[in-house]
Amino acid sequence: MTSSAHRHRVVIIGGGFGGLAAVEKLKGADFDITIIDRRNHHLFQPLLYQVATTSLSPSEIAWPIRLLLKNRPEVTTLLANVTGIDTEDRVVELEDGDRVPYDSLIIATGARHAYFGHDAWEPFAPGLKTLEDATAMRRRLLLAFEEAERETDPERRKALLTFAIIGAGPTGVELAGAVIELARITLKDEFRTIRPEEARVVLIEAGPRVLANFRPDLSDYAKSALEKLGVEVLLNHPVTDVTRDTVRFDGHTLRAETIIWAAGVLASPAAKWLGVEADRAGRIKVEPDLTVPGHPEIFAVGDTVTVAAPDGKPVPGVGDAAKQGGKHAAGVIRARLKGETTEPFRYRHAGDIATIGRSAAVIDFGWLQLTGWVGWWAWGLAHIYFLIGLKNRISVAMSWLWIYLTGHRSARLITWGEAGSGKK
Amino acid sequence: MTSSAHRHRVVIIGGGFGGLAAVEKLKGADFDITIIDRRNHHLFQPLLYQVATTSLSPSEIAWPIRLLLKNRPEVTTLLANVTGIDTEDRVVELEDGDRVPYDSLIIATGARHAYFGHDAWEPFAPGLKTLEDATAMRRRLLLAFEEAERETDPERRKALLTFAIIGAGPTGVELAGAVIELARITLKDEFRTIRPEEARVVLIEAGPRVLANFRPDLSDYAKSALEKLGVEVLLNHPVTDVTRDTVRFDGHTLRAETIIWAAGVLASPAAKWLGVEADRAGRIKVEPDLTVPGHPEIFAVGDTVTVAAPDGKPVPGVGDAAKQGGKHAAGVIRARLKGETTEPFRYRHAGDIATIGRSAAVIDFGWLQLTGWVGWWAWGLAHIYFLIGLKNRISVAMSWLWIYLTGHRSARLITWGEAGSGKK
Repeated sequence: MTSSAHRHRVVIIGGGFGGLAAVEKLKGADFDITIIDRRNHHLFQPLLYQVATTSLSPSEIAWPIRLLLKNRPEVTTLLANVTGIDTEDRVVELEDGDRVPYDSLIIATGARHAYFGHDAWEPFAPGLKTLEDATAMRRRLLLAFEEAERETDPERRKALLTFAIIGAGPTGVELAGAVIELARITLKDEFRTIRPEEARVVLIEAGPRVLANFRPDLSDYAKSALEKLGVEVLLNHPVTDVTRDTVRFDGHTLRAETIIWAAGVLASPAAKWLGVEADRAGRIKVEPDLTVPGHPEIFAVGDTVTVAAPDGKPVPGVGDAAKQGGKHAAGVIRARLKGETTEPFRYRHAGDIATIGRSAAVIDFGWLQLTGWVGWWAWGLAHIYFLIGLKNRISVAMSWLWIYLTGHRSARLITWGEAGSGKK
Repeated sequence: MTSSAHRHRVVIIGGGFGGLAAVEKLKGADFDITIIDRRNHHLFQPLLYQVATTSLSPSEIAWPIRLLLKNRPEVTTLLANVTGIDTEDRVVELEDGDRVPYDSLIIATGARHAYFGHDAWEPFAPGLKTLEDATAMRRRLLLAFEEAERETDPERRKALLTFAIIGAGPTGVELAGAVIELARITLKDEFRTIRPEEARVVLIEAGPRVLANFRPDLSDYAKSALEKLGVEVLLNHPVTDVTRDTVRFDGHTLRAETIIWAAGVLASPAAKWLGVEADRAGRIKVEPDLTVPGHPEIFAVGDTVTVAAPDGKPVPGVGDAAKQGGKHAAGVIRARLKGETTEPFRYRHAGDIATIGRSAAVIDFGWLQLTGWVGWWAWGLAHIYFLIGLKNRISVAMSWLWIYLTGHRSARLITWGEAGSGKK
């Protein structure tokens, strides 16, 4: 950190949980801050599965980044694609040739779903990371019922009413519960040749239990709660092949016209931008203070890094870890400029939480475990609390109340990519 | 109408205002009813401009057709593309080869925007008829500000902040008011290099006044209300050319990176399906009872037809005319089956209504004219009344209240067509 004529320039790449937490923590410091994201919105990813399953609309869980930072005149928001980082000149390179200089850099670029050597499966088993992923999944789910209604071949009709979800982490579990309730409650009585409530939802997990991060008794609870809703849970079944309408595992072949991928993530290309070492999932191996090895002025946080907690356990890829990381990085930058000593990153695990349909959830705070409807209400209240702004809180609360009372989901739209939308 | 072993089969093509009004009017009759639409949702088109300008989200103005008809077991809803009508065999032909037989047919297939010999203008000046049109327009509007923020060439920056709207009917007027308020109120203070409130909104009309269907004094009021908001209104300026970033009229060239088409509509291809005469806008010239000439068992209603009111005036292409037409057609079918005599269609014009920004509207009931905030409140209450379902009414009312109180619009998302969305 050399002294200079200009104010200290902090550039943050990514407007997710990590990036926004960093901006928040930099409030009041005499810095020039630039936040760069390729999307115009911050996305509340924990509820993305509810957009995919028609409960919430995209704008209920997303906010324009520049709106959130409107009252921070020292912060400039750029909508741009980052293509590289020139660590020599300390410049972030944008796709259109612009270069954004930094004195300190925070990389909070997240992860995408990944197929680990099976990229050919992607078109058949899409994953869920963006709003477009969610509206595309919503379309596939709803179209399956529409096509089944008009299908005369009983075998294909059965395949259209079979939904395979690969991976039983929180996303897979939450999707499975939502899809079965969509079929059994929301779509009931709306069709004339099919009975949507006969749809099969099959959750396929390679490991020995659902929600592997939770305590074993909570995994058992979640499994039986799913089964009570009607989900078929298959454990110890690593998937060996996926085609347009089949999933193969252990010599079994399941015919399903809708296959959803909830089994793996791959970090952003930040490690490549920097030319530094990454693990198998593409994550940068950062120092204990979240700096990139060899670059004390560059921090990386959240899903795009791997860092060990003081007890040696890996920090999980959850929103709260990204938030804590962003806050830590910003704190170190502030402390350094004041000449104060800095601490290594200490992750505090608040708990694990997952919902199963509209009446059960599992919460593991470590010191307290909640299940059933108590868990569901705690989950609901916590998520409404974490949403940004009164309008969205009221709106999401109302959407949930509506589903709870009537079974109707408010965002059951089949929409297509717009003509002429050009680039992605 | 021959007697037969089966129940009388009514097929309705189109789930818009006309089609749904027909289904409603057929309630309680001993018919088999099939409603076919290529979209899964009924769309409240009068508020579509509010989706395009970020005030409402798509699901607030659209409802799954089969949800609306859930409690009508005699009604089958089909999501399908109609490709033709075999009037000999009395069968509707679907894209996938299925054939749907009818005894009576109601065609309510609406219209799309049209460029009348200038189809090359479409990619540069998109129109507004579907939810995808609206989210694409929303993206273009928001991206213009985003790109302007990063543009260094002052000429291009000016062009990015110039919004040209072609056509000053209700859609053009409502869009112009919404775009200028988006720039001047909603986006204020969010950018660092541009001032969004300096954006120009230019409304270009070929004819001598805005809202040509209204009384001249109301047109004058609307024009000055728009100008008060900051919109530049150009009358008597037929557009002669549109390119990617220019609009030409009368030798003038306006440079604008965002151009919106609100100037013309073309009827659905129903006239071609039937092989009957159509006017220049592709509309079927129906008989006074709304039947298709030579086909007393086929009715056509709404924007896809042209019909003269008893006083000789053409029936306007508005939602209420489609509703009345659908209701009339269904009534004739019911009366015929009972052997009762039928009446010609009598259109009753309820009034014209258009809003200008968030604090003015013009309403012409014939016997009463309203303007200003009284007009706006009447407009708002009327539209909330016409929405379907309590949830959407509360939701839209809350979104409007929010904009009114804070200027914040809740659906400011830039989203792209999804990868792999396949067909449109």
